[in-house]
Amino acid sequence: MAAELRAPTDKELAEFVYVKTLAQDARDKSINVLGRLAKSPTDEPQNAILLFQRTPFDEGEILDISTRFHTWKPIEFNDIYYRYTGQTYDIERYPAFKATLIWPATDAHIAKYSLQARRLFNETPEIYQSVVKPYIDALPLSKIQWVYNILEKKAEADTIILEVEGEEKGFILTPDMKWDGITMDALYLTVIVHRRDIKSLRDLNASHLPLLKEIRRKVLELIPQKYPAVGADEVRLFVHYQPTYYHFHVHVVHLRHDTIPGGIVVGRAHLLDDIIGNIETFDPNYYQKATLTYFLGENDALFGRLSEAGARVSP
Amino acid sequence: MAAELRAPTDKELAEFVYVKTLAQDARDKSINVLGRLAKSPTDEPQNAILLFQRTPFDEGEILDISTRFHTWKPIEFNDIYYRYTGQTYDIERYPAFKATLIWPATDAHIAKYSLQARRLFNETPEIYQSVVKPYIDALPLSKIQWVYNILEKKAEADTIILEVEGEEKGFILTPDMKWDGITMDALYLTVIVHRRDIKSLRDLNASHLPLLKEIRRKVLELIPQKYPAVGADEVRLFVHYQPTYYHFHVHVVHLRHDTIPGGIVVGRAHLLDDIIGNIETFDPNYYQKATLTYFLGENDALFGRLSEAGARVSP
Repeated sequence: MAAELRAPTDKELAEFVYVKTLAQDARDKSINVLGRLAKSPTDEPQNAILLFQRTPFDEGEILDISTRFHTWKPIEFNDIYYRYTGQTYDIERYPAFKATLIWPATDAHIAKYSLQARRLFNETPEIYQSVVKPYIDALPLSKIQWVYNILEKKAEADTIILEVEGEEKGFILTPDMKWDGITMDALYLTVIVHRRDIKSLRDLNASHLPLLKEIRRKVLELIPQKYPAVGADEVRLFVHYQPTYYHFHVHVVHLRHDTIPGGIVVGRAHLLDDIIGNIETFDPNYYQKATLTYFLGENDALFGRLSEAGARVSP
Repeated sequence: MAAELRAPTDKELAEFVYVKTLAQDARDKSINVLGRLAKSPTDEPQNAILLFQRTPFDEGEILDISTRFHTWKPIEFNDIYYRYTGQTYDIERYPAFKATLIWPATDAHIAKYSLQARRLFNETPEIYQSVVKPYIDALPLSKIQWVYNILEKKAEADTIILEVEGEEKGFILTPDMKWDGITMDALYLTVIVHRRDIKSLRDLNASHLPLLKEIRRKVLELIPQKYPAVGADEVRLFVHYQPTYYHFHVHVVHLRHDTIPGGIVVGRAHLLDDIIGNIETFDPNYYQKATLTYFLGENDALFGRLSEAGARVSP
């Protein structure tokens, strides 16, 4: 392999060969392309991914941009990530676009930046028992060791905003990694419960109402005290199903921050107020009896199993 | 007033005076600014709004751009709307940004393009009865005359994709105005029921299950037939509460199309599958007994009344 990592020179970048578009997002004004780039004229070309963000592109422009690397301004390099800005009339101050070069790019990178097909699933209680629960039970606890480290103060202890002690109703509240801590419109906190016996929404019943109500009350009291620019009526408290990890946690997100990974789309997200209401007003075992509807990407672990079990939405 | 409308000249645009930023959206990469522009050196300056879309801006750049109008390329003019693209290294083919000038801009324009504050509300059954229902009942039917025109085939009859006749379970299915009819990833249809006695989600009970199930079945059967690129498991069927108009209708939107006005955010959107499940599995009067949680903008008609009624979310 090449001796040391360094940024490609303009001359090298000019040899970038466009292969295909991996994904395109008109909302984000971004496009991810796959190409080939060699470290030297005698080396074998390797996969290289270019991520662009700007006003909507077409593929003709991507081909054109890749002949003009000498006009790009390098910003920073970190390991295999090389960041640039592209020119407008005043490249120093107002870039037309940002570009990140990932090189060499692995298959995992290519999968990560490619568009995934999505499908909608109806998970009945029966399908939960026969497909999803066995999957969750088989997950190694090591996958959530990082959660236990936070709960045990072995990591990130200095970021804890609030802690309520106790097995039954205890939890910690921390800023989410995705939040910069400054932009109040994008406020994003996470509540992680101390108890380890709630894997997901499916495990919740009437015995958990004191915990859920304690979370709601303590968090809504604290927010305006700690973040005076944010009212108790300006945040959403919700959980995901399927969650991204199987230790019960609640997201606390500013109303205005509505484009977050995992998302707050109906079906995936469940408001804490609705969860409490469903259990308290309608059925202590609501979440064991309800059919839950959500989308999965084709790379999700449960996608194949749920498809085989016939859980995909149909007439 | 000026005799005829015409696009501002470069010289005129150079006199644009920036007043303030109305709204900024990091997701869309857009910014709306308010300024002042006069039709001639002897005329009084009038309000002018500039809408920009691109990679995230800061206000320093807006001030700078407004000194460089001579570099803008005009695209089209329509009434008070003047559209431009801004320069990169190749203005003919690859613009850095799009800009729309609205001039003269009315107060209604300014309100429209300004950011609205939002708050989250818990609407209990009691608050529905005392505040929301009277509001809905007092709305003039003329507000939904356009819906009746569609149902009676007085308008848009040629766009009807499917019709099921009958008072109890009847409905029509049409493409939504917002959909171009071509981009399958953005497929957006609307189901409008024939019966006129369901104003919103709050009116639904077990007697409506046949209607709701008929809608689900017929729509999910039709989609893959009429739009072969779209599976029955690639669309979301949902309703809004509060809805944008008070005649029961169901949205049918492609899974991938997740940034739509009104939105599919949890709380505002309710999956048809969840509505059917809640009524059928848990309580025939679920939607009369549940507390519904949703956000409103401060310009919404119910914002003030619900705030006075104490419905804003609190600990």
